[in-house]
Amino acid sequence: MNILVLGDIVGRVGRKGVKEVIPKILEKYSVDFIIANGENAAGGNGITPEIAKELFAMGINVLTMGNHTWDKKELFAIINDETRIIRPANYPPGTPGQGYGIFKVKGKSIAVVNLMGRVFMSDLDCPFRKMDELLSELHKADYIVVDFHAEATSEKVALGWYLDGKVSLVFGTHTHVPTADERILPGGTAYITDIGMSGPINSVIGVKTNLVLQKFLTQMPQRFESASGPYIVSGIVVKLGQRGMAEDIIRIQYIERE
Amino acid sequence: MNILVLGDIVGRVGRKGVKEVIPKILEKYSVDFIIANGENAAGGNGITPEIAKELFAMGINVLTMGNHTWDKKELFAIINDETRIIRPANYPPGTPGQGYGIFKVKGKSIAVVNLMGRVFMSDLDCPFRKMDELLSELHKADYIVVDFHAEATSEKVALGWYLDGKVSLVFGTHTHVPTADERILPGGTAYITDIGMSGPINSVIGVKTNLVLQKFLTQMPQRFESASGPYIVSGIVVKLGQRGMAEDIIRIQYIERE
Amino acid sequence: MNILVLGDIVGRVGRKGVKEVIPKILEKYSVDFIIANGENAAGGNGITPEIAKELFAMGINVLTMGNHTWDKKELFAIINDETRIIRPANYPPGTPGQGYGIFKVKGKSIAVVNLMGRVFMSDLDCPFRKMDELLSELHKADYIVVDFHAEATSEKVALGWYLDGKVSLVFGTHTHVPTADERILPGGTAYITDIGMSGPINSVIGVKTNLVLQKFLTQMPQRFESASGPYIVSGIVVKLGQRGMAEDIIRIQYIERE
Amino acid sequence: MNILVLGDIVGRVGRKGVKEVIPKILEKYSVDFIIANGENAAGGNGITPEIAKELFAMGINVLTMGNHTWDKKELFAIINDETRIIRPANYPPGTPGQGYGIFKVKGKSIAVVNLMGRVFMSDLDCPFRKMDELLSELHKADYIVVDFHAEATSEKVALGWYLDGKVSLVFGTHTHVPTADERILPGGTAYITDIGMSGPINSVIGVKTNLVLQKFLTQMPQRFESASGPYIVSGIVVKLGQRGMAEDIIRIQYIERE
Ligand SMILES: [Fe+2]
Ligand SMILES: [Fe+2]
Ligand SMILES: [Fe+2]
Ligand SMILES: [Fe+2]
Ligand SMILES: [Fe+2]
Ligand SMILES: [Fe+2]
Ligand SMILES: [Fe+2]
Ligand SMILES: [Fe+2]
Repeated sequence: MNILVLGDIVGRVGRKGVKEVIPKILEKYSVDFIIANGENAAGGNGITPEIAKELFAMGINVLTMGNHTWDKKELFAIINDETRIIRPANYPPGTPGQGYGIFKVKGKSIAVVNLMGRVFMSDLDCPFRKMDELLSELHKADYIVVDFHAEATSEKVALGWYLDGKVSLVFGTHTHVPTADERILPGGTAYITDIGMSGPINSVIGVKTNLVLQKFLTQMPQRFESASGPYIVSGIVVKLGQRGMAEDIIRIQYIERE
Repeated sequence: MNILVLGDIVGRVGRKGVKEVIPKILEKYSVDFIIANGENAAGGNGITPEIAKELFAMGINVLTMGNHTWDKKELFAIINDETRIIRPANYPPGTPGQGYGIFKVKGKSIAVVNLMGRVFMSDLDCPFRKMDELLSELHKADYIVVDFHAEATSEKVALGWYLDGKVSLVFGTHTHVPTADERILPGGTAYITDIGMSGPINSVIGVKTNLVLQKFLTQMPQRFESASGPYIVSGIVVKLGQRGMAEDIIRIQYIERE
Repeated sequence: MNILVLGDIVGRVGRKGVKEVIPKILEKYSVDFIIANGENAAGGNGITPEIAKELFAMGINVLTMGNHTWDKKELFAIINDETRIIRPANYPPGTPGQGYGIFKVKGKSIAVVNLMGRVFMSDLDCPFRKMDELLSELHKADYIVVDFHAEATSEKVALGWYLDGKVSLVFGTHTHVPTADERILPGGTAYITDIGMSGPINSVIGVKTNLVLQKFLTQMPQRFESASGPYIVSGIVVKLGQRGMAEDIIRIQYIERE
Repeated sequence: MNILVLGDIVGRVGRKGVKEVIPKILEKYSVDFIIANGENAAGGNGITPEIAKELFAMGINVLTMGNHTWDKKELFAIINDETRIIRPANYPPGTPGQGYGIFKVKGKSIAVVNLMGRVFMSDLDCPFRKMDELLSELHKADYIVVDFHAEATSEKVALGWYLDGKVSLVFGTHTHVPTADERILPGGTAYITDIGMSGPINSVIGVKTNLVLQKFLTQMPQRFESASGPYIVSGIVVKLGQRGMAEDIIRIQYIERE
């Protein structure tokens, strides 16, 4: 069983990229299940019900989120019922939406978990301990896949090791830059620190370059906007195998020809 | 003209890796100049004169540094005279050592600059404005190469765009995880967000995994130690070309067979 | 010569408080010059030309600012010409507005400087070195008064010692809570870590309590609004004396009777 | 019933101050119970069994702690058994020591809780939710007193309001600068944002001034040492009254004559 995971979809350019690229990936790889991070899908900030629908229509099965989950108020209308949208599980108890979902694929069950890091980010519950809790709930799932939406490489690599042999896949999101450290850890878990973004390639992690430069140069507030121009679509294809572990992880990248 | 750049050398394992791998790289690529980041060369924290000497003896021409520059007091004895060790240029005026060096290679001059980011890091001078200053000093150099030692991908990517067409190469260090975004920017500058580390592969960015996990799980202080085991050596080979720009950037990675 | 300084004026409640309290203070103390921090005067975020005018009409001579300087776009229309509004001097060169002003009072000149801290705040230029620069420009002023808008007590206390004997007064703003450490330092400089706010007393530093509690409990974004209810007006009265130094610093606090 | 609370005792100077000042306070106020924050008692960093013993011998009944709890390894030998030392309760489950203690005083029980903030500090468990948990355990105590060891005024003031009417007293520690906002909140809880330190007055929050200035000016690491010279002892006296609430809170400050 193969799963495809696509990194943070940023705005209109990212959505266009994903729409064009998914069919190309499906031609090349046998894919049974598609996960994408959707926290920046609506103009860089959050997601709306309409945009989620648009993304599901492209063949994406599950959307994970992150620190931008709550940026669009419209999401609150559906987040409790739309079980294909997964927000970080380590928000406090009582938070709208769900921190994981279990999906049936070819007779197997895949649990998809979203967690958020704390280093340089929000004061959420401990992602390590939250995952311990979830593991006891999820032990019946055939495969467990974790999107760790985090900033610091140390926290991400540490969670990879912590879950090695306990889950099928730990992939990172949030930095919008793909890392080249994909591997199968000794216990059988596929791991990568960040899968990068699906968004405008000529930008600063999705945002118009001149706006970000103004921010750094002036230290005055800037209203950020997603960039236009050609897309990059970044992600991974992971082959799931025996005893809930992974057999292979391949990094993929599609850049729009200008 | 080709230059080789190796990521943060971490402790004994990293030094062993670099020593074994440099000859292999030289067999495969024609390399005229070698830069390595040395801020973690002494047991993960800083560098000593002895270790610098050891690294220069391996063929490294220049050592760049970062937030760990000052960890070993022994360095102060040589930092003002050893012009092959470059610490971040955006420390305040009067800081020991030098923020750049100019090196003669095959009749050309290569300026090597070290800068440090501010996002999630120290309160140094603005790296963008500091680089503007340095550019006016360095305009006679044939090539300018910048090690941007920084945490946040936004700040790193932004500096890449800011310097596109003005320098030959901007490479990132500090996160110890290589990124897969190497490219030649439209203006001719080679860019990569992070070149990764040269250190123990079975670790959390160089540190013993169990110590880092204890830190995250308990939030109590831990004395970190560099890990042992097989090495990974990460870096780039960049081909410098016409008018001070780059023609090619290739990511390289050597993992010790266990 | 006595100067009155009032802490961050927060929204409508703060403006009402200042308007009612200034006459009471003038009855009790002989005051020759009034400074107030105005960064939160417009509904908690920034200041507008109209609100600045309203505050000057109350007898305030100078408004200092802070991290909220740029919250209201309307300010840009006047900030370059309105020399009675002072924004942090350690923004990069080229920033709109002025970092200090010199005011004539009873035949003497008072320089009012605004600086912002960096610890837990923005990546501005070093406030210590910026102040060194300004001191050489301002050495002809009879008195120098510094509003250090900063978060960390260590940075604030350190600047006080750094400027002891060089300026008349260093007062802190930004935390919205007055400190009880006012004193004349050995070199003759009056110092206080924070003068507190002029705003709604039943609030979390000016903001509606339930909104801030929701933020801490849920970690989800909240739209903050200034609180209503009775005001507190906090500040200091400082007696300036010989050789540019201070002779006395008194903390004042007026709470509206409910 | 009156309780005396003394702020962070810093090093030798702080211990000397507390020893000399406690008898003077006892002459002036009727005090039934003494709490002090001891996280900096050993040279500025942590506490040892010997120093704890020394402090208990001065009449202190309970020592609360903070982010420096673990600085001295010697403490681990006694922390589980010494129930008069209270470390932040919102460390993860399994942390050595206790997060609260219940003490019998004149036939009444006083629960003393230590909590740590998260804003600009460590990634501990939510102090608000942890306190909810503790409240259900502590509902039989006659009085509940909370040392909230935190940096940001917003978090501290918010916890005060959150616990108003539920506990007798919320006092802040950690910034080492006393605030002038002591009050009885509408629900009957005594509150103050920070009670300040007991340590060397001519210092930067306890540390030698020149070392801290070097740190800010150079951004290079400094080995901090506690300052010498005259002491300041800062704290509060709180009168506990009916139904578990407070009737009065008075800020106190003793400065050594030079
Ligand atoms: Fe994202
Ligand atoms: Fe994110
Ligand atoms: Fe490093
Ligand atoms: Fe580093
Ligand atoms: Fe303010
Ligand atoms: Fe502020
Ligand atoms: Fe302390
Ligand atoms: Fe502390």
